[in-house]
Amino acid sequence: MREVTVPLSDRSYPIVIGNGILEELGPRLRGLGMRGSLAVVQDSQIARSYGQRVLASLEQAGYRATSVVVPSGEASKSLAELSALYDAFSAARLDRRSVVVAVGGGVVGDLAGFAAASYLRGIDFVQVPTTLLAQVDSSVGGKTGVDLPSGKNLVGAFHQPRLVLADLDTLATLPERDYVAGLAEIIKYGIIFDPELFAYLESNREAALRHHPDVLTHLVARSCEIKADVVGKDERESGLRAILNYGHTIGHAVEVAAGYGRYLHGEAVAIGTVAANWLSTRQGWLTTADAARIDRLLADYGLPVRLEEALDSQEILTAMQLDKKTLDGVFQFVLAHGIGRVEVEPLSAALALEALQVIAPAAELAG
Amino acid sequence: MREVTVPLSDRSYPIVIGNGILEELGPRLRGLGMRGSLAVVQDSQIARSYGQRVLASLEQAGYRATSVVVPSGEASKSLAELSALYDAFSAARLDRRSVVVAVGGGVVGDLAGFAAASYLRGIDFVQVPTTLLAQVDSSVGGKTGVDLPSGKNLVGAFHQPRLVLADLDTLATLPERDYVAGLAEIIKYGIIFDPELFAYLESNREAALRHHPDVLTHLVARSCEIKADVVGKDERESGLRAILNYGHTIGHAVEVAAGYGRYLHGEAVAIGTVAANWLSTRQGWLTTADAARIDRLLADYGLPVRLEEALDSQEILTAMQLDKKTLDGVFQFVLAHGIGRVEVEPLSAALALEALQVIAPAAELAG
Repeated sequence: MREVTVPLSDRSYPIVIGNGILEELGPRLRGLGMRGSLAVVQDSQIARSYGQRVLASLEQAGYRATSVVVPSGEASKSLAELSALYDAFSAARLDRRSVVVAVGGGVVGDLAGFAAASYLRGIDFVQVPTTLLAQVDSSVGGKTGVDLPSGKNLVGAFHQPRLVLADLDTLATLPERDYVAGLAEIIKYGIIFDPELFAYLESNREAALRHHPDVLTHLVARSCEIKADVVGKDERESGLRAILNYGHTIGHAVEVAAGYGRYLHGEAVAIGTVAANWLSTRQGWLTTADAARIDRLLADYGLPVRLEEALDSQEILTAMQLDKKTLDGVFQFVLAHGIGRVEVEPLSAALALEALQVIAPAAELAG
Repeated sequence: MREVTVPLSDRSYPIVIGNGILEELGPRLRGLGMRGSLAVVQDSQIARSYGQRVLASLEQAGYRATSVVVPSGEASKSLAELSALYDAFSAARLDRRSVVVAVGGGVVGDLAGFAAASYLRGIDFVQVPTTLLAQVDSSVGGKTGVDLPSGKNLVGAFHQPRLVLADLDTLATLPERDYVAGLAEIIKYGIIFDPELFAYLESNREAALRHHPDVLTHLVARSCEIKADVVGKDERESGLRAILNYGHTIGHAVEVAAGYGRYLHGEAVAIGTVAANWLSTRQGWLTTADAARIDRLLADYGLPVRLEEALDSQEILTAMQLDKKTLDGVFQFVLAHGIGRVEVEPLSAALALEALQVIAPAAELAG
């Protein structure tokens, strides 16, 4: 078991990572002095696999816990589901001492987190991430929110959890495709911050893909350490935190343009990373050898490195313009300066359009 | 013209109060260094009276401003209107440098404020309150939010504005009934904090009701000073700020139980204040003479001091239980300890029920 702290002075919180630690949830909430009632917001698939264990742990610790089940899938990150959560909280008579516990992947964490951030103007929140993506990324750092039809995460809040409890055993029931998509974010941490992590991913591919406990614990804990360090220095994304968005500007836009659900988030990020690699090389910051090394690692892990079907460039551009990372219509891109270091740089729409050629479907001629 | 500062260190902001100062909006935004595009969210009635002047001031200062009109009335403080604002912001391509300007009463301010708090996880926000209630209360202090069918303000955020600009001339078009309802909150400031303000209200009733500029400026500025002081000491309502809720626990519940729109907020607060006076006397903190003095001032200003029609006690209790001021099912009441000082005290449901008898319709026999 590993414990990583997100350093935010009086709002610092622990990320607990290990195998078979789901039963620790109740005692740990007690340890944090929480004494209100709980709303346990669960992904519908996760509720079937782990719901009883989670609720039993909470009830054994003496909590009154109301379970609220949310349909699996990105479509649940909507204002409609948010509204349903508010109604459920209201029916369960949550008050200012109550705690929202999110059990599931990023969708449930982001949705329940924003509900906790906004219900009664903000109540306590705990994350129990059950996907690799959520464990290394979305459950850490306090970003919460929902999607609008016009773009992902356009509505939300910064609301830090009081605790993140990541039981790696829950990944056993995660579909292989989702697991691999989560690895895309771990690869990102290597690119933006840690050449050693990148090399470790190259050397331990087989073990990582087999969920080897030691390798997986190292990958998740190291990813959380990097994210915790960045979030501790720039909680509200006024600067440094933007480096976490490597591959995400085009990645998000691809998700939107293809229609939510076509690509998993990590898959879209992998494709966006290939585009970001090309832009980094184009601007003279990344060698073609290093760009190829990143592209290869993504492909070796079974991640997509180009679009499966052509997307309308204009639609991707429009989605990018709606993205929070756009300022006054100029794209703020994160570019790699070698493996392990990135910088933010404004880029033109024309250059972004060129990058889209690099990730065009294999069958399509470059235009 | 008067200027009051809400002291919140690096998030401190000015409240500018005066007659005929609407045209200063554009230059003042420039003075604050704002350089993004603007979304001007206006109450539909206000838009007809002042919309052109507001937009002209902003455009003359060089801003690109998109006007978004919201139907007048409490019903607009809904998740549905919030969703419509998000769509409008998205269509207007707001980015992180954009500013939401709310022009109207508390409904528009609370709604637009929460939209600003949550769009792109929070963008800048400016309040141009055009009702007395909004000028002395809701526009100051950063509370934003919307109602749920089960209760008022159950969803929201603390999001401080960057500027509040209160043009007292806009009160000329405010219906008399709304103006008087706003005075209920000014009376509240006297009760909770300032016996001199209370006496001033007693001595200057005629002038206050006639919108006398000097008297009105004093009343609004003094109210804002008191609120700014309280908010500066307890931004997120962890303690002191609760004193602002004198008369509000039962007041809010009356609004809910009677159906939103039956009573204006200030009217419901006036009725709730009478109940709170009785509870304060019942607990031995307020003399019957002082309770009567408060009740008389409310009545002298034309405010209701009891319900017009009987309401179901159980419904009022249920609404109180849903209120944010309830903790673990115990009511946290603000009680007056003389005129000018209040304290928070937990009270039982039984006592709250007794207080409801005091505000029962005149025609009804006390039970």
